[in-house]
Amino acid sequence: METLAESHRETNTSAAAPAQTASQADARHVLHPWADLSGLGEQTSLIISQAKGVRVRDSAGKTYLDAIGGMWCMTLGYGREELAEAMADQARRMAYYTPFGDLSSEPAARLAERLSQLAPGDLNRVHFTTCGSTAVESAIRIAHYHFAAQGKPAKRHVLSRINAYHGGTYLTQSLSGKDADRTLFQYEADFVHHLSSPGHDPDRSNVSAAEKLQTLLEEMETEILRIGADNIACFIAEPILASGGVLTPPEGYQKATFEMCRKHDILYISDEVVTGFGRLGHFFASEARFGIQPDMIITAKGLTSGYQPLGAVMISDRITDALAKAAPKDKPVFSNGFTYSGHPVACAVALANIEIMEQEDICGHVRDVGPYFIERLRELRDNPIVYTVRGDHLMACVECWTGQDAGPNAANMALAQKVDAYCQDAGLLVRPYENLCIMSPPLIIDRTDIDRIVATLSDALAKAQADLAAGNI
Amino acid sequence: METLAESHRETNTSAAAPAQTASQADARHVLHPWADLSGLGEQTSLIISQAKGVRVRDSAGKTYLDAIGGMWCMTLGYGREELAEAMADQARRMAYYTPFGDLSSEPAARLAERLSQLAPGDLNRVHFTTCGSTAVESAIRIAHYHFAAQGKPAKRHVLSRINAYHGGTYLTQSLSGKDADRTLFQYEADFVHHLSSPGHDPDRSNVSAAEKLQTLLEEMETEILRIGADNIACFIAEPILASGGVLTPPEGYQKATFEMCRKHDILYISDEVVTGFGRLGHFFASEARFGIQPDMIITAKGLTSGYQPLGAVMISDRITDALAKAAPKDKPVFSNGFTYSGHPVACAVALANIEIMEQEDICGHVRDVGPYFIERLRELRDNPIVYTVRGDHLMACVECWTGQDAGPNAANMALAQKVDAYCQDAGLLVRPYENLCIMSPPLIIDRTDIDRIVATLSDALAKAQADLAAGNI
Repeated sequence: METLAESHRETNTSAAAPAQTASQADARHVLHPWADLSGLGEQTSLIISQAKGVRVRDSAGKTYLDAIGGMWCMTLGYGREELAEAMADQARRMAYYTPFGDLSSEPAARLAERLSQLAPGDLNRVHFTTCGSTAVESAIRIAHYHFAAQGKPAKRHVLSRINAYHGGTYLTQSLSGKDADRTLFQYEADFVHHLSSPGHDPDRSNVSAAEKLQTLLEEMETEILRIGADNIACFIAEPILASGGVLTPPEGYQKATFEMCRKHDILYISDEVVTGFGRLGHFFASEARFGIQPDMIITAKGLTSGYQPLGAVMISDRITDALAKAAPKDKPVFSNGFTYSGHPVACAVALANIEIMEQEDICGHVRDVGPYFIERLRELRDNPIVYTVRGDHLMACVECWTGQDAGPNAANMALAQKVDAYCQDAGLLVRPYENLCIMSPPLIIDRTDIDRIVATLSDALAKAQADLAAGNI
Repeated sequence: METLAESHRETNTSAAAPAQTASQADARHVLHPWADLSGLGEQTSLIISQAKGVRVRDSAGKTYLDAIGGMWCMTLGYGREELAEAMADQARRMAYYTPFGDLSSEPAARLAERLSQLAPGDLNRVHFTTCGSTAVESAIRIAHYHFAAQGKPAKRHVLSRINAYHGGTYLTQSLSGKDADRTLFQYEADFVHHLSSPGHDPDRSNVSAAEKLQTLLEEMETEILRIGADNIACFIAEPILASGGVLTPPEGYQKATFEMCRKHDILYISDEVVTGFGRLGHFFASEARFGIQPDMIITAKGLTSGYQPLGAVMISDRITDALAKAAPKDKPVFSNGFTYSGHPVACAVALANIEIMEQEDICGHVRDVGPYFIERLRELRDNPIVYTVRGDHLMACVECWTGQDAGPNAANMALAQKVDAYCQDAGLLVRPYENLCIMSPPLIIDRTDIDRIVATLSDALAKAQADLAAGNI
């Protein structure tokens, strides 16, 4: 991989030579998201130093095929010169100015215009943030304001789902429903409610998709009636649950839940942080794939191909018109947002990203190779330690088990970690979550590299299966 | 200003020519932070298109001296080639990889190392986020985890203050205590408590600094005893309240409140998003200016000179050691953080920013010109519509009044807006908050431009005063 073999420059700006390696500095000075606190300060981190296309290289010089796309976000691949130039150009011209009140920048204004063109229906207004979490925060707060402005401040409860993932702040972690993430932190319980996880795996389910759908809808309506529709502001949902384990609801679920929300005047917030920007073959999947026009759509990650921190909530004209109309005369200020909302450098990168996606027809490419990716991965079900393989276009998941009980028990998790370790040895990054190997490769991946992912995973599964058979796991 | 006269390129990546100007696109498609909802869609935004040094230019070609430094954050000034190159270099080399678990990048590891060297005492560990709000979120959550891990989950209440500003999320807006920002959104009330605003203005106060300090401390201790120290996790405080109106507590306040927190085992979180990175003449003001070593320090804004969205919470070894020791065996995961925590591009810019700050001795420059800035601004008190002028080094505030009642009433606010409008006409951006003109110029500002700010403000105040005298306000 010649492109990665170029001169390797250590990032070090201290005057004296560094006394510790980057890995040592990291172990000593960084508290990572989702760090293992029991080994704090002792782990040696894997430092990713260089990257090109769909491959990354660590500080020791080892190269990996990146099957997780950074973390769902590296869509156009690493080392895109156009994106590097877009950020430097904007930084030279005007790196930042406040977006508060009536001040703006050309990249923010133009990006909002482009997103409005790409989003379904009347989602024509954009509130920018710094990431997905802050965009979800803003969407919930907009839902609260919306009903309070109509004299319904009690209409503030939020429906979410088990296994959802909506972010890392106090409120968005509370909306999230992954049991493994519920640790010793505090969680909001007063106005957040979790419905059942809607994932349906036809290969492994005892019930049909239609039965599952009916059960889910009955539960949702029962919960709405229990809480009272007059107390519920919104329902938030990923069209396909991503970090929760690539969980696909039964067909018709998104549309039926959307209609139930309409019936009860509950706003529908579609969290497309993962499913948007091409991962399912469309800029936004809500309408193109699931036939719904949400009141708000959350986007982040692929919005900048991960090159810049940026998030946004797209808002229906119906909502913004109502906000404008109902805002109180004495305090009509929309007191929500961030210093870095619509950061000019991040927005310039997002504009360049959209331009490349259109010029190279990235969505068309995903619609082409996506089914191949899933089809090839599903061959892995032949290995007995594979409980199931599920996914949709370029988001997929291999679920491991020892053959005894399915699910995230200690034995299955140890097995998946073994698979992950064998993959990493062989130069493939497919990091596991619990007993799952979750994959979301860069959207530019081709059939050859898809074949490599499947071949490497197949070998790793075989080795882990041999370990299990030999009693070594 | 020759440097801004270079070729002007519209940011527009859509294939067809734009049907609307950037200002029109902005009015139609952006929901701004702190937007005036009563005029949504009708405002024409001021589009800042180019910038160099301490000056910005709008899309119509008009140039302004930027007395607000972007928004507290543009510390090194606009158009710094080194920062543009740092981001492009890093984007070419490795734009992003996940920071979750045991994965890291060289810029994040090295920046954490540098911040640990710059921060006081044993604040040797960094949890990166995307902005100040998410860093405050993380600090509060760390305080919660800290006590829960010690078997004290009830020790979760948070003490904040009236007029504080800590961010734009649900929790951080709830911690904030600016009355004008309390609109129709929801606010957390269960575990957030606000003490009185600690600002003390010797020019305008009826009581001495010592009396004010005593009153504040008595109230704080009374509130601690009322809630119960066993129920309070932390106290969060800006050393000088920034957005609340550049409010300086009486001398000794920071140290006395810190000691009270120690006495009651309450963690002290110092929010240095504004006061850090040179605005008061030091990388961190907590110890250098106020003699305290907080348990956590929040930083953002000046950390990247505003060129990139980045925030961080610096954490004491005492806290991280306790977290590591008390983490439960079955779930030792620190389930907090963000996709873009420690974004390599943002961290590379922060490293370059620190290098420039040290090479050019920016902190020394601020310690030199800061007192001059305040001294010159205080000359404006001669105008009768100036109620007071207060500040510290490069954060300052001119408070207007009609001469009747002081404070943010409608008449005083209209007057300050008139001052702002005259300044803008004359090419100076000093945007008002309520009846205040708040200023935080780039740290590179020199005496000549300080004189220009004061002269322009003086003229604007004289014109507004004449309007008032003529009954035109």
